[in-house]
Amino acid sequence: MSTPPRGHLVRSEIAEQPAVAERVLAAAGGELAQVAARLRESAPRTVLLTARGTSDHAALYAKYLVEVGLGLPAGLTSPSTLTVYGARPDLTGVLWIAVSQSGGSPDLVEPTAAARRAGALTLAVTNDPASALAAAAELHLDVHAGPELAVAATKSYTAQLLTLWLLVTTWRGGGTGPAHALPGLLQRAVEADDVAAVATRYRFADRLVLTARGYSHPTAREAALKLMETSYLSAQAFSAADLVHGPLAMVDADRPVIAVVPEGPGGEAMAPVLHALRERGADVCAVAPEGLAPDATVRLAVPAGVREDLAPVLQIVPLQRLALEVALARGLDPDAPRGLRKVTRTR
Amino acid sequence: MSTPPRGHLVRSEIAEQPAVAERVLAAAGGELAQVAARLRESAPRTVLLTARGTSDHAALYAKYLVEVGLGLPAGLTSPSTLTVYGARPDLTGVLWIAVSQSGGSPDLVEPTAAARRAGALTLAVTNDPASALAAAAELHLDVHAGPELAVAATKSYTAQLLTLWLLVTTWRGGGTGPAHALPGLLQRAVEADDVAAVATRYRFADRLVLTARGYSHPTAREAALKLMETSYLSAQAFSAADLVHGPLAMVDADRPVIAVVPEGPGGEAMAPVLHALRERGADVCAVAPEGLAPDATVRLAVPAGVREDLAPVLQIVPLQRLALEVALARGLDPDAPRGLRKVTRTR
Repeated sequence: MSTPPRGHLVRSEIAEQPAVAERVLAAAGGELAQVAARLRESAPRTVLLTARGTSDHAALYAKYLVEVGLGLPAGLTSPSTLTVYGARPDLTGVLWIAVSQSGGSPDLVEPTAAARRAGALTLAVTNDPASALAAAAELHLDVHAGPELAVAATKSYTAQLLTLWLLVTTWRGGGTGPAHALPGLLQRAVEADDVAAVATRYRFADRLVLTARGYSHPTAREAALKLMETSYLSAQAFSAADLVHGPLAMVDADRPVIAVVPEGPGGEAMAPVLHALRERGADVCAVAPEGLAPDATVRLAVPAGVREDLAPVLQIVPLQRLALEVALARGLDPDAPRGLRKVTRTR
Repeated sequence: MSTPPRGHLVRSEIAEQPAVAERVLAAAGGELAQVAARLRESAPRTVLLTARGTSDHAALYAKYLVEVGLGLPAGLTSPSTLTVYGARPDLTGVLWIAVSQSGGSPDLVEPTAAARRAGALTLAVTNDPASALAAAAELHLDVHAGPELAVAATKSYTAQLLTLWLLVTTWRGGGTGPAHALPGLLQRAVEADDVAAVATRYRFADRLVLTARGYSHPTAREAALKLMETSYLSAQAFSAADLVHGPLAMVDADRPVIAVVPEGPGGEAMAPVLHALRERGADVCAVAPEGLAPDATVRLAVPAGVREDLAPVLQIVPLQRLALEVALARGLDPDAPRGLRKVTRTR
């Protein structure tokens, strides 16, 4: 038996994403429809989301879906206020959504149990129906990603995004039809041949800035995390609105920028930032459909004609692949990042 | 008339902080007490905070105060959902707090006006009672920092923190006595002589990680922003809980870490992270009272015996001074960061 090549876990889990999306879509009529009906019925006044790491980026995505699609106030909450400081808020009328791949992190289980006691309707979104988090929450949604063995989460992230999109869309009575194109589009993203050239470009980069707005902001943050944990790059993500409030000063020709530019209002709102970057002579890689952000130096193309609120499911794939290829080019093993474990035990 | 030395604006505004704190405390009986009474009376069910840049870190601090001190759910919200995407949520029963030094950024004025129309009780916390944001909100609190001329905000940040602490403490009927020690403690922080050695240590660093938990998390984020905008360092801040979920992989002996460790539960919760950093051989600078985090390589000492929820007002001062000194050591002008303007116009 031969030793598997470095990065084979991450690579195979990235490649599974079209099949995972098929499973998520196939399951949407059952448990997910029931949970969505329950949420509609309970008519929460506020949604609080809690998560860590990659799942926190899925929670941020869900925040935009809830605020824009449902017109409900939503916020990301700090588990530490309930665990470290023992806060006991009144959460009547609050929907509390905890997102976690493993469902095993104590810093989500304890606050979710506390939120439930405090009167919130609690929903856990995990990749393990038998997890402690699933048990702590009143409602549970499985993201159907299958066992994820690589420390760097990939397929569980797109499964979380798609599950949350289906949940919010079903809750508000919207049609889920547009999501059915995703498995085919994900397959194209998994196979696209433009990643290698960008990975070569960043082979010797040691710091990198990522930026986006709105629905695509989580893409920038998740891509930064992938690059940090697999390639040990100093990758920093900023909302394009925040970037111009200070961090822009550190962008120069030696610090490449990856800008995520979807079709729709969030992509249009990137125009002034792209302009400012161009004025500074920044090297910009656009994660965008052909034709958008035409001045970018290089491009990781994503399919055109995708709704802006679904685009994040596709945008992350070339960036996952970029993190993998940069790590391999540097002689690192993206399957075994130093100092990390799959389930992180913080409180 | 001689040309003023580089960085004189930032330096003099840092030095003004004890006097600013005096003014904030002196004004707390008037407008602030009235606003606090109004908030108590209106009994909001949820608090949403919105801000950008430095003010966003003050908003994050206020989120902890509201969640822990008042037991109310609180979240940071994205102005872009109301402006870029035109979301129109029902905000009845919501307290909307917009924090901004200038009160002039359109991406806060428009959503605050929209939040008010949507039924929220709106409060603007600014450094200019005549600003558009003050006019857009139903309630206004002046942070009394006086004109801030440097692009890098310093005195307006500690003024925001102290104003928000006084507001929440008065709202919940707590005593504001502990804050009256701050002007004297700030004076010690402005004069402390341990900054120069740490600035020398980081003279040639090009990337740096900052970490903290709970109330002190905003300190890490604000310090990272200061270092980015004045010294062009790649400074990245992580909640200590998030750090171990991935970014820890990129910490090594060449990437110094600044850990903010206050007395209290948030500081105690740093223990496992400090342990993990020590295991990796990281070079750690503790922003902490003497005796806490004893294994740190270097220290920026802050006074002992300060309540954890007030400590952020003091912790940031040595870090503002560090950003100033590193910038000067690199021959940069911290008063004129490249590419930045004082009032940022995003939507």
